[in-house]
Amino acid sequence: MMDLHILDHRLRVTSISKSGLEHFTHPLIKLIFLRNRTRCKFFSLTETPENFTLVLDEEGFKELQPSEHLQVESSTWLPLNVVSNGNVSSSSQAVGVTKIAKSVIAPLAQQHVSVFMLSTYQTDFILVREKDLSVVVSTLKEEFSIYQEVEGESVPVRCQDVTHNLQKNSKEAIQLTVHPVLIPPNQFCVMSLDPDTLPSIATTLIDVLFYSSSPKEESPDQELDCIKFFSFSLIDGYISLVMDSEAQRQFPSDLLFTSSSGELWRMVRIGGQPLGFDECGIVAQISQPLADGDISAYYISTFSFDHVLVPEEDIVSVMGMLQHHRKEAATS
Amino acid sequence: MMDLHILDHRLRVTSISKSGLEHFTHPLIKLIFLRNRTRCKFFSLTETPENFTLVLDEEGFKELQPSEHLQVESSTWLPLNVVSNGNVSSSSQAVGVTKIAKSVIAPLAQQHVSVFMLSTYQTDFILVREKDLSVVVSTLKEEFSIYQEVEGESVPVRCQDVTHNLQKNSKEAIQLTVHPVLIPPNQFCVMSLDPDTLPSIATTLIDVLFYSSSPKEESPDQELDCIKFFSFSLIDGYISLVMDSEAQRQFPSDLLFTSSSGELWRMVRIGGQPLGFDECGIVAQISQPLADGDISAYYISTFSFDHVLVPEEDIVSVMGMLQHHRKEAATS
Repeated sequence: MMDLHILDHRLRVTSISKSGLEHFTHPLIKLIFLRNRTRCKFFSLTETPENFTLVLDEEGFKELQPSEHLQVESSTWLPLNVVSNGNVSSSSQAVGVTKIAKSVIAPLAQQHVSVFMLSTYQTDFILVREKDLSVVVSTLKEEFSIYQEVEGESVPVRCQDVTHNLQKNSKEAIQLTVHPVLIPPNQFCVMSLDPDTLPSIATTLIDVLFYSSSPKEESPDQELDCIKFFSFSLIDGYISLVMDSEAQRQFPSDLLFTSSSGELWRMVRIGGQPLGFDECGIVAQISQPLADGDISAYYISTFSFDHVLVPEEDIVSVMGMLQHHRKEAATS
Repeated sequence: MMDLHILDHRLRVTSISKSGLEHFTHPLIKLIFLRNRTRCKFFSLTETPENFTLVLDEEGFKELQPSEHLQVESSTWLPLNVVSNGNVSSSSQAVGVTKIAKSVIAPLAQQHVSVFMLSTYQTDFILVREKDLSVVVSTLKEEFSIYQEVEGESVPVRCQDVTHNLQKNSKEAIQLTVHPVLIPPNQFCVMSLDPDTLPSIATTLIDVLFYSSSPKEESPDQELDCIKFFSFSLIDGYISLVMDSEAQRQFPSDLLFTSSSGELWRMVRIGGQPLGFDECGIVAQISQPLADGDISAYYISTFSFDHVLVPEEDIVSVMGMLQHHRKEAATS
């Protein structure tokens, strides 16, 4: 049996408009670089062509001044994390959301629980709304030993703790929407960095995050339908970076590391119109077939769209899979 | 004969309120750290207890959005720079404003020309209003070979270039005000840094400049009437830093350098009420006796007050000198 941890972070999901980011330079630089000045322990910033998605705990959220440039999703979200307790034998070598597709993502979708996924270099956070927690626990308690982290302690969640509070979400059959996907030509890497060396890349990271929309030079990539996607997270002291190879060239090559050198990923962006936060089953819909094919995948939800990263060598089969899926949906 | 260069920078003198600095984080970080993103060549930022004084050229100035937190002195200022042309024999070993007290500062004061001084690790900039330039040239042309820098070329200024335009400033006897002075106990150092290593101290410098007013810990110094004073300039590619020993401890000791290791300076702040920009003779009044005593001095004007740094071992004699001066003024 695997362990599922409900982490001790109460998260807000927000977005900052492209033109508004400069007004948030002061709090964001503090949250990213000045660990001594903040008690924020969960911080994630993802730039997409639409906006900047910011997921952060309450300590971080209170650094943000209300503004016309800031949109805040109204719920509090809790991050779940699946931890192998060492006794698990799995035939899968795949990493990322693929590992939890059948055990977590599919059952939650069946219970109409919306999830907001945040894969990092280190792990995959499954964010669920705080109000859905009792449904989540009762749904997953057969498959997992569930622990709630409270001030650094992992406290087992007993079933009776939640059952009295259980309110199953509605049980209508899920009407699956097949969202359009976009597959940009960028090659991405998923990297990490020793937090102690973060100061060494500070000016580069600041340049990429806060000033890259200034017209300096035209990137040749822009002609090839590449999309801007850059993600930085600093969660419980661990740094994760997702960037395309164009952005990577700006960083010193000796400080960032990835699990196997030269590993490149391609992106599938899900959604033609912004997806919102209420539709269930979006993650399940794509992670299920990836699990069937044992294809590793990082999954990063943002304020407007969802993003899946798959190994470059698998992108053709993933495209085939998506096309098949689309045809099936059209004829069913 | 020495050379006087009128540098090719048109400067604005501005101030940002203490509470307003965070609104300028975005442009200031760009001007300080991202040389590729800006054409600003003259940038100086000085924090005092009152505000932040920003002196910068027009390329830098246009990065600043108008704001209730930004005060702008209405004139355009030009920086002058005295350059030894190698043939000068001087008995003085003193550095800083002392060297130019008699040749530049005193004559300009006599002609009622206001100056705004900015000493750096590398040199001393004498800022004069653009409208005073003809008076400046006619006043100093006997003592100096005067050159105007134009797009990297030093062009000799011929007397006829300015005489037709000469309008002597008013000639009434200067009514000298003796301003109160403050001598805080801080020990200061005047340092420099290889611009290529600026990224290495970026997070520390950002912390000190933009976040040091956050209540983190109470500095023990604050009980001893120390004042906050921190100056950073990046002018024509040269970096100069003035900070007290408390701030210096936050920086890695191997990157910042000073002319002779361990050299410490004490400050004389001039002015009880903000000095404004029109009074003449403030610099002359203090630099004259320093020159007589051959005491080195850095001189940093800010939006509200003037600041002189003298070697620690000379502070007692400087205090005596100032007291003598005050008594003389009272009895004359």
